[in-house]
Amino acid sequence: MPSDIEIAKTFSARPIDEIADALQIDPAHRMHYGRDICKVSLNALKSPRPRSGRSHLVLVSATTPTASGEGKTTTTIGLGQAFTQLGESVCLALREPSLGPCLGMKGGATGGGYSQIMPADRINLHFTGDFHAITSANNLLSASIDNHIFHGNTLGIDPRQIVWRRVMDMNDRSLRHIVVGLGGKGQGIPREGGFDITAASEVMAMLCLASSAEDLQERLDRTLVAYNYGGEPIYARDLKITGAMMALLRDALHPNLVQSFEGTPALVHGGPFANIAHGCNSLVATRMAMHYADWAITEAGFGFDLGAEKFFDIKCRLGELDPDAVVLVTTVRALKMHGGKAKTELASEDVEALELGLENLDKHIESVQHFNKVPVVAINRFASDTEAELELIKQRCEQHGVSCAVTSHHADGGKGALDLARLVMESVEKNRPFIPLYDLEMPILGKIRAVCRQMYGAHDIAFTKQAEKDLRQIEALGLSELPICIAKAPSSLSDDPLLHGRPRDFEVTIRNLHVNSGAGFIVVLTGDIMRMPGLPKSPAAERMHLNPEGGIEGLE
Amino acid sequence: MPSDIEIAKTFSARPIDEIADALQIDPAHRMHYGRDICKVSLNALKSPRPRSGRSHLVLVSATTPTASGEGKTTTTIGLGQAFTQLGESVCLALREPSLGPCLGMKGGATGGGYSQIMPADRINLHFTGDFHAITSANNLLSASIDNHIFHGNTLGIDPRQIVWRRVMDMNDRSLRHIVVGLGGKGQGIPREGGFDITAASEVMAMLCLASSAEDLQERLDRTLVAYNYGGEPIYARDLKITGAMMALLRDALHPNLVQSFEGTPALVHGGPFANIAHGCNSLVATRMAMHYADWAITEAGFGFDLGAEKFFDIKCRLGELDPDAVVLVTTVRALKMHGGKAKTELASEDVEALELGLENLDKHIESVQHFNKVPVVAINRFASDTEAELELIKQRCEQHGVSCAVTSHHADGGKGALDLARLVMESVEKNRPFIPLYDLEMPILGKIRAVCRQMYGAHDIAFTKQAEKDLRQIEALGLSELPICIAKAPSSLSDDPLLHGRPRDFEVTIRNLHVNSGAGFIVVLTGDIMRMPGLPKSPAAERMHLNPEGGIEGLE
Repeated sequence: MPSDIEIAKTFSARPIDEIADALQIDPAHRMHYGRDICKVSLNALKSPRPRSGRSHLVLVSATTPTASGEGKTTTTIGLGQAFTQLGESVCLALREPSLGPCLGMKGGATGGGYSQIMPADRINLHFTGDFHAITSANNLLSASIDNHIFHGNTLGIDPRQIVWRRVMDMNDRSLRHIVVGLGGKGQGIPREGGFDITAASEVMAMLCLASSAEDLQERLDRTLVAYNYGGEPIYARDLKITGAMMALLRDALHPNLVQSFEGTPALVHGGPFANIAHGCNSLVATRMAMHYADWAITEAGFGFDLGAEKFFDIKCRLGELDPDAVVLVTTVRALKMHGGKAKTELASEDVEALELGLENLDKHIESVQHFNKVPVVAINRFASDTEAELELIKQRCEQHGVSCAVTSHHADGGKGALDLARLVMESVEKNRPFIPLYDLEMPILGKIRAVCRQMYGAHDIAFTKQAEKDLRQIEALGLSELPICIAKAPSSLSDDPLLHGRPRDFEVTIRNLHVNSGAGFIVVLTGDIMRMPGLPKSPAAERMHLNPEGGIEGLE
Repeated sequence: MPSDIEIAKTFSARPIDEIADALQIDPAHRMHYGRDICKVSLNALKSPRPRSGRSHLVLVSATTPTASGEGKTTTTIGLGQAFTQLGESVCLALREPSLGPCLGMKGGATGGGYSQIMPADRINLHFTGDFHAITSANNLLSASIDNHIFHGNTLGIDPRQIVWRRVMDMNDRSLRHIVVGLGGKGQGIPREGGFDITAASEVMAMLCLASSAEDLQERLDRTLVAYNYGGEPIYARDLKITGAMMALLRDALHPNLVQSFEGTPALVHGGPFANIAHGCNSLVATRMAMHYADWAITEAGFGFDLGAEKFFDIKCRLGELDPDAVVLVTTVRALKMHGGKAKTELASEDVEALELGLENLDKHIESVQHFNKVPVVAINRFASDTEAELELIKQRCEQHGVSCAVTSHHADGGKGALDLARLVMESVEKNRPFIPLYDLEMPILGKIRAVCRQMYGAHDIAFTKQAEKDLRQIEALGLSELPICIAKAPSSLSDDPLLHGRPRDFEVTIRNLHVNSGAGFIVVLTGDIMRMPGLPKSPAAERMHLNPEGGIEGLE
């Protein structure tokens, strides 16, 4: 099969205005970035829906993924294309790729094979500048904090207790732990600090959860950035800088419209981490997809336990969304890995390993049901999969009473996901309003326990001394009623990244808690979670270059 | 008089396509960023000029400015508008504002009064993302250097001899001197480092001097980034990352087209510092303005001694440009300051101080003549100027045999610069091909002496021990034949920022030299030159906010 880039060269994009016209987006709400991309103003959400029927929201999630991912984004795009082929009104809502990983290990994030969105080079690199705007806003706040201390520190900010970090959209491990403000009296106040990657910025999380500019302004204002020498909280509003942050974020607030190879519209907007943040595209993009189409298809990062749990308990609760269908993407390869097969041997048939690994799928199906939802399983087919292996997964789904389709959207585009699309449409009838895993009024400890038990299958949780201290501080701030956002290894249902399959009888250790008062959740850390990736020995960037026609080669 | 923003609200921009149509820019070469901005592809320069006559290049420079500037950009825009009013084919070529200073002390950089370019909010904040792309490319190279060392350091890079710094488009003094790579074995290699502001990045200088994508690729390749433990140079090409840097810079290479209040087209592209870099908009933007219009009007940063010297000796020499007219902007206020009047009293008449201060103008007129050019003096009129004061400057110009016009473009738009425009047109006849101040084959010391004597009026130069050492290193690298780029205080003709007027009998102390092998010049430092500004106690950002209509308020 040809490479993603070779395939991309065989497709040509329609002018984005044609895509926008088909969605009936008022031209006054479009802001163009070249021929192939436009932003759609949030004001559009204030005008009446152009569609008469009700909109359906489809969530695509996955079983516990291998390091290379199970094709969740590709399945989402393929499914969207299948809806287009079936003559349905559909719009995707996806996350924006982060530049750092594109240049590092991961490559681009615009799908693959015959299920891609385009133009991949622009979407993967700077796109419409949203990440850069978030970086600038985040770092203006950082500069203001240090500047305030430098100019007399009337707020009494304790330089040892600044919780707001700088960010950069780059994989740069050398910036994780730094000392700033060196060089003498005129050069600032020496203190420890560091950079996270932009996707990990709380500004990103805020932008993705905000329902309007006014809402984002309020979130920025209430963002905790430091403590003073008396231990009292300092908020961003105290630095009088949130108005300028809003000015920097003005355009970034509007979702970006692009298209897939088969002309399916896609709103690509926002890209928060799925561990320390909630891992979905912006709320406004999801709402906008539902505004303009009968079917809005979105995804949540990592496995169901991480991304989808947050999608429900944080985003849906806040944004008053309720998916009408839930897709669980799985692969024969991943399930064999969960059954104990070595990563290097996943291409050879192994029905026994698969049989063992199926308990990972079992758990995720149960997890979907914990939210009062009925999943549709999508087996994302690879060339090495055998009929016996596929059959085994289908049988298991049948035992659960869950429908299941094998998809070949990577090789066949939308055509390869037609069966899945039909099952998704049928499943709408079976779904009932979602029930969150916990009530916001529960004590923090109870909320954490609820997620760890119901989603991860843990028998209990343990708190470190530090976590207990953090908990008391959050209670003292009066923020106990926020939802929780657990950062956990994505490669396991447990907090041990090496435990595959369906771990049982384990305890989740809670190491730290910190509050994102602007985003509006409590981040619960279960281990060392990377907020600033590093580059591998041979980064993807080494293989990129510009060809004489101005095209970007080597973007994987 | 109403504020700049209030004035801006009374003008509405024509669709940028109308502006581009008037310039006869092929629609295929346009890439839109909303309704009011488009990039114009460099490919346009390969097609024939749509104009039949020859193009004239006008350089706008200034006498030694006060801290608030003498209105060079505003005069450039006003002059362009005057050409438009006279029915001439004209296009401006201007620098892009830097975000950091907009949020700090300086405010925006899109002109003022009735001589502004628009949309000011977008141009001043993220514009088309060029600065962000430069930031990303610069920092990818930084991350690659540290990553190379982390993964075994086969090039033997000495962490104490890395000359490539990170950048951010922010005024953040705390990042000037930092220690990176702390935190233990997995977190990088501890070393000293720091951030400059993006405008000070050598990538910015390279982009502004490159004549094509191929040229930029070569410049990136040959950029000196560090030395190995043996003292040998390490170039960016050794890190195999320049192809990806090009990918990141692809769109940033194309000039941005906007318009002034009166519909005069402006190519706004690139914004390097005028001390440690050459201080003019991109070469390709200047060429493009000349490609599409009979009159291309451009400016060079700070006073004539800094920006214009580099414009001639670096940019014109490299890019085979030769201005047909040179404008020297001056103000009654600045000349009074040069005559010894206190900064707080510049609004009251003082013919004696002005008389004394005129020697600053004398020197700059002579400096223009050193390049074999004939200046036109533009007195940028302020409300507090008296007739006696204006008359005195005019007399002095007459004594020099130099034409002179009083302009009121700030209050009156293009109409206020009609006299200046006519004088500029007349002066074309008087100008002969420019003669650089020095030949490239001269020893570095001779080049520095030539500029210090002819431009600054110094009697000689002195080298510190460090500068001598730096000189030998540059000779050893075989880079002695590059032009020089002197970083000097902009507020004085001398290297002492407090010496006003026309300092005499002074020696310029050369403290450091370093080579920008990619940009292609030797930076000569005469003092502590700020490469990363700090925020003032009450930054401009504190007064910015987003209004309910999505407009940005408080951008000065």
